[in-house]
Amino acid sequence: MRELSAYNHDEIADLRARDEFFWLDLDTPDEATLEAISDQLGWHPLAVQDTREWHQRPKLDDYEDYLFLVVKMLLLTERKEIAIEQVSLVLGRNYVISFQENGSDVFQPVRERLRAGKGRLRPSESDYLLYALVDAIVDQYFAVLELMGERLEAVQQTVVDDPKPETLNDIHALKRQLLFLRRAVWPLRDVLNNLSRSDCRFLHESTKVFFRDVYDHVVQIVDTIETLREMVAASLDIYLSSVSYRLNAVMRVLTVITTIFMPLSFIASIYGMNFEYMPELKSRWGYPLTLAIMALVGVGMLVLFRKKRWL
Amino acid sequence: MRELSAYNHDEIADLRARDEFFWLDLDTPDEATLEAISDQLGWHPLAVQDTREWHQRPKLDDYEDYLFLVVKMLLLTERKEIAIEQVSLVLGRNYVISFQENGSDVFQPVRERLRAGKGRLRPSESDYLLYALVDAIVDQYFAVLELMGERLEAVQQTVVDDPKPETLNDIHALKRQLLFLRRAVWPLRDVLNNLSRSDCRFLHESTKVFFRDVYDHVVQIVDTIETLREMVAASLDIYLSSVSYRLNAVMRVLTVITTIFMPLSFIASIYGMNFEYMPELKSRWGYPLTLAIMALVGVGMLVLFRKKRWL
Amino acid sequence: MRELSAYNHDEIADLRARDEFFWLDLDTPDEATLEAISDQLGWHPLAVQDTREWHQRPKLDDYEDYLFLVVKMLLLTERKEIAIEQVSLVLGRNYVISFQENGSDVFQPVRERLRAGKGRLRPSESDYLLYALVDAIVDQYFAVLELMGERLEAVQQTVVDDPKPETLNDIHALKRQLLFLRRAVWPLRDVLNNLSRSDCRFLHESTKVFFRDVYDHVVQIVDTIETLREMVAASLDIYLSSVSYRLNAVMRVLTVITTIFMPLSFIASIYGMNFEYMPELKSRWGYPLTLAIMALVGVGMLVLFRKKRWL
Amino acid sequence: MRELSAYNHDEIADLRARDEFFWLDLDTPDEATLEAISDQLGWHPLAVQDTREWHQRPKLDDYEDYLFLVVKMLLLTERKEIAIEQVSLVLGRNYVISFQENGSDVFQPVRERLRAGKGRLRPSESDYLLYALVDAIVDQYFAVLELMGERLEAVQQTVVDDPKPETLNDIHALKRQLLFLRRAVWPLRDVLNNLSRSDCRFLHESTKVFFRDVYDHVVQIVDTIETLREMVAASLDIYLSSVSYRLNAVMRVLTVITTIFMPLSFIASIYGMNFEYMPELKSRWGYPLTLAIMALVGVGMLVLFRKKRWL
Amino acid sequence: MRELSAYNHDEIADLRARDEFFWLDLDTPDEATLEAISDQLGWHPLAVQDTREWHQRPKLDDYEDYLFLVVKMLLLTERKEIAIEQVSLVLGRNYVISFQENGSDVFQPVRERLRAGKGRLRPSESDYLLYALVDAIVDQYFAVLELMGERLEAVQQTVVDDPKPETLNDIHALKRQLLFLRRAVWPLRDVLNNLSRSDCRFLHESTKVFFRDVYDHVVQIVDTIETLREMVAASLDIYLSSVSYRLNAVMRVLTVITTIFMPLSFIASIYGMNFEYMPELKSRWGYPLTLAIMALVGVGMLVLFRKKRWL
Repeated sequence: MRELSAYNHDEIADLRARDEFFWLDLDTPDEATLEAISDQLGWHPLAVQDTREWHQRPKLDDYEDYLFLVVKMLLLTERKEIAIEQVSLVLGRNYVISFQENGSDVFQPVRERLRAGKGRLRPSESDYLLYALVDAIVDQYFAVLELMGERLEAVQQTVVDDPKPETLNDIHALKRQLLFLRRAVWPLRDVLNNLSRSDCRFLHESTKVFFRDVYDHVVQIVDTIETLREMVAASLDIYLSSVSYRLNAVMRVLTVITTIFMPLSFIASIYGMNFEYMPELKSRWGYPLTLAIMALVGVGMLVLFRKKRWL
Repeated sequence: MRELSAYNHDEIADLRARDEFFWLDLDTPDEATLEAISDQLGWHPLAVQDTREWHQRPKLDDYEDYLFLVVKMLLLTERKEIAIEQVSLVLGRNYVISFQENGSDVFQPVRERLRAGKGRLRPSESDYLLYALVDAIVDQYFAVLELMGERLEAVQQTVVDDPKPETLNDIHALKRQLLFLRRAVWPLRDVLNNLSRSDCRFLHESTKVFFRDVYDHVVQIVDTIETLREMVAASLDIYLSSVSYRLNAVMRVLTVITTIFMPLSFIASIYGMNFEYMPELKSRWGYPLTLAIMALVGVGMLVLFRKKRWL
Repeated sequence: MRELSAYNHDEIADLRARDEFFWLDLDTPDEATLEAISDQLGWHPLAVQDTREWHQRPKLDDYEDYLFLVVKMLLLTERKEIAIEQVSLVLGRNYVISFQENGSDVFQPVRERLRAGKGRLRPSESDYLLYALVDAIVDQYFAVLELMGERLEAVQQTVVDDPKPETLNDIHALKRQLLFLRRAVWPLRDVLNNLSRSDCRFLHESTKVFFRDVYDHVVQIVDTIETLREMVAASLDIYLSSVSYRLNAVMRVLTVITTIFMPLSFIASIYGMNFEYMPELKSRWGYPLTLAIMALVGVGMLVLFRKKRWL
Repeated sequence: MRELSAYNHDEIADLRARDEFFWLDLDTPDEATLEAISDQLGWHPLAVQDTREWHQRPKLDDYEDYLFLVVKMLLLTERKEIAIEQVSLVLGRNYVISFQENGSDVFQPVRERLRAGKGRLRPSESDYLLYALVDAIVDQYFAVLELMGERLEAVQQTVVDDPKPETLNDIHALKRQLLFLRRAVWPLRDVLNNLSRSDCRFLHESTKVFFRDVYDHVVQIVDTIETLREMVAASLDIYLSSVSYRLNAVMRVLTVITTIFMPLSFIASIYGMNFEYMPELKSRWGYPLTLAIMALVGVGMLVLFRKKRWL
Repeated sequence: MRELSAYNHDEIADLRARDEFFWLDLDTPDEATLEAISDQLGWHPLAVQDTREWHQRPKLDDYEDYLFLVVKMLLLTERKEIAIEQVSLVLGRNYVISFQENGSDVFQPVRERLRAGKGRLRPSESDYLLYALVDAIVDQYFAVLELMGERLEAVQQTVVDDPKPETLNDIHALKRQLLFLRRAVWPLRDVLNNLSRSDCRFLHESTKVFFRDVYDHVVQIVDTIETLREMVAASLDIYLSSVSYRLNAVMRVLTVITTIFMPLSFIASIYGMNFEYMPELKSRWGYPLTLAIMALVGVGMLVLFRKKRWL
């Protein structure tokens, strides 16, 4: 088995002549290279075109002589952001060719296991290599989901402690990311289900069991995404209701203050009137009595509010 | 192969006699022409009737001797509005006839490739022409979706910065447009799936692969529409909660102002009373002390509000 | 072919003896008539019972010797209200019998075409007559949907211009009507799909194409109902958010007024106090300066509000 | 045919020996009786166990020698409350055994028709008796649904006229009842569908038509439940928005009052200040002019509010 | 039949040699033990790997020579919290091996019935033991659901009596727990359905009936979870609307107080003005008349509010 990282017509012709299995890993190849590979390996024009369109859904096309597979790769950038990249994989009788969008090193572990020749990675079977590559991609998903889970927990904390419009933006950012994740993972489920049941002649029964295993992982990922989505939706509910609860608290304070001071001010304003004939004003006890009445009204209101549980 | 843009009975009779493949592209034909074509080509009355009804769902009817296809065309008008038009396509053994609602030039690129005789557009096969026409229509969808995406981004910006009732109208306009788009695209999915699996004798296996490709595009479009729909729904949520957040902010200001000035005004109104016996009024320090108490109450309230994070 | 509008045992016996095809159109027949017909034509007790129950779902029962069909008829009353009525249709080898709930004239056009003997209505085939009757019923649906569309547009206008509780009632009336429509139309889809694929021996292949056409119409109607439902739901959203936006506007006015006048009134109330020693009161410039300060505070507040975009 | 209401080993042994068909109707039998019946008729232990578990889903188990059926019975109690009870029915070659949870008299009409020997209830066929029993149970559902409909109408009235928290409780009580109803009826659909298509040897073709009819009834019931559920959800919407509309109205009154009286009080408080030099106070026309200005401001505000449609 | 709780290579080799059926129950075994078992019994590497991953979905893998089953166990901890643990079960021709996450005693009753040799637990059949184990796990679910039901009832009470933010947290805790429950139970449905229809040669027809019974239980559990979910959602609705109803009540009080005292204070402030020429002030009846007018205005307002049902 030969591992190639650049396209060379003669080398491949030679390998094919000797019927030796090879893996060619290309990073955003130019059009000329693509045409050359396609010509040499006899691919359908549509397959070639698909490797050039970077916004496809995950899919599996069976062209009899080769399988064409589009998978989405989820990556964590250094700033802990989630990047979605596309990988096209072509499986032929004695080759696997992978096209990456931006050469990130997600296939590095596979490459190392291949070189060490250890583990279950037997170099003689192209379908098993395909499995190893897909498995490496799907393994990345778990890391991304874990990050999402952590972010959700952080948001759930803020939502209860201190809901701000920024929290709302965080919730919606999470929601949008989960939406994109789901879009990337959901069709992969069918792809892997088809792979594990495919009657393509390059896929051995013994390898299909492994594709079934990756399928189980993807189902689990889909499940987790749905759970996260429901929990994000719940966070939004909590956000909205804690904002409305706070509004309630604010309004209650406003009402309590207004209800206490309005009658008091009214009483004061009565004795601020300048009528000539107001007997209370002449009285020795007018002022202290008025103050006493005010105190009574104020305390009475407070007691009422405590009874109504507004304080 | 002959390309016709107007109906002429004898010309078609001649072409059919020589078994030469032709494409007739008609722009809202009158009833007489329709009847004439239908008679000459032996169509079922229902098929003819369908070409005259401009509000149909995309569909595929297999009449054995010909396939009848209704597709919706999405167009961007000059004022960047989205227009939905209907195209009926009839595929016979040696002809393709297209009926457009308002002759827009969406088939122009196909026509040019035909005339140049270049590319994969082989003039000998009617089913491949059908594919080229459908493909040209579906390609337009992507442009429309891109515009929708841009509009959504603009709305998402305003929703956070300055939510106004007009923003709400924009959101609902987007929602409605996506609804119509979905209605135009969703049934097309089944149509293309059926085409790529049809056992109609005019459809060659080699062409079905191309219909499968258009099918993949339509699935991708449906996917994008669903994502846009979810994002529009999220924008509505953000709009509503930023409006309610602003209400909250307004109410808080109201409460703070009321809570600070009500007690202060009350104190002032007490010493505005005209009781004859009010010892404080005679005191030298009555006024400055009252002012000091007012300042204390005011500052105390402010400190309280800051503690409660209302300011 | 004979067209009957009342049941007469001997007449029908005679027609059946001569193997002549007849259509009997009955308007809410009494039980005795029903029993008589059922006996004469050998119907199953359940079929007879079904014609008497006026609240059934649209359905198709195949009793081998006859097809039993329940369809819902939508009618516009004179006051532009929507009435739902039930029609039971029985198709036998050489008869069609229709039972209407309240004789409305929806079959009048069919009857006229029959009598004129023109168009495609060939009097010899009972299955084609069945199609013509069902088609006449389905055609009525479009008129009802158009009315619903107009009402929705009217509601959409009011919702933006002047949302009132009555608008809400209108929205919910529309919603309820669409719910009933959907309930009447949805099962009809299956009924017509089954008719167009049925292997009943009275249904000729050539007629099934027509049932397929009605099926297409019904699918289109279901589609339109779903779109209308989504648009009604959107109207409800707009109603609720324009109500809440107005609340916001009202609260803002309240806050602006309170925030401007509370401090001003407080200042005035200070100089309304009756302390003996208040040097400002004696000052020549006390009054104009106080007015100036008040003006300053008021204008300052206004500027602040304009900055915060509350005015 | 023999009708039994208590278990007697010898009696049944005798009936089975003579191959006579019997119906045994038991009301919450004790465990010993159950074991005895089960032994005598050779039932599977699981079937016996199922008759003792009163919280099962409606289901149909085919044990070849007998059919085991669990159905939910809906009853209206005397206080017009809805009770859900379980009935287990076992159909053997020459017997029907029914186990009720609390002997309510829902089978009374069946019993009477049996004894009168009239109608279509032929005593010789056990499967027809099973149909009659299930039909009697399903007939009860319609009465329950009618009651639900009446309650919904009552709620719809209050929601518009006088929305109170109790109304909300009523809405949610309805919602919960419909949830339980749905849970009881939904699986019954499959049960009856299976019965009407079952290839069990006790079920005659002629009886399956009747099960098909009950199936149609259940589908109609499910439909009605869904419609009621949507209408209850709509009632909740109306409740919430009429509460929020009332809040709006209240706030508008508050704002109008505040906005009118705050400026007026402010003007009054200005001339309540005790500055020595306030020329207006000395003026003969100061007081009437001030009153005039106040009237002007007040009327001006009112006009403004009427213009803004707040009054 | 032998019951083992620790792995011993020779013992198992001996049992297999004598073809004696054994049950090995392991509690979080170390890797070495796992490898040893796997080697001795000839398991696929993927199966071994699965027993080590504690976050899997319930699933059933058929490896022909053995069935591999993952089930989730729900446990109530002592503090009445719900713990979800994973159990892997492997069924071979003459063995059952169970791997638990943390040795909780859920299999104790099975073990006791085995030792007592009573009931239906026949020690000779490995498939029946598998059923007994799965049944013991599923039985635990009912206890958990009952607890959830009690908690929901407690929440429903508080939501109406005294809605606080903590209530909201309780509601969302319930919602999240039900989400996890659903995730644990939902795939189990398919697993048991597959078991009861599997054509695996270790599963006897007579045992499949029992798996069908557990399947029925799981369907019932799924049903109950869905009902609980809907009721939790309803509680959230009630919470939100009772919070908003209370806001309404608060605002009404505020409005009533403001509307009554604002005009009264205004009247008082008019007669607090210091104009020299205010004839009312000199009048003997000025003061009592003003008080009378104030009383009138106040009472009038109260009457108005009672009419509008605000009090």
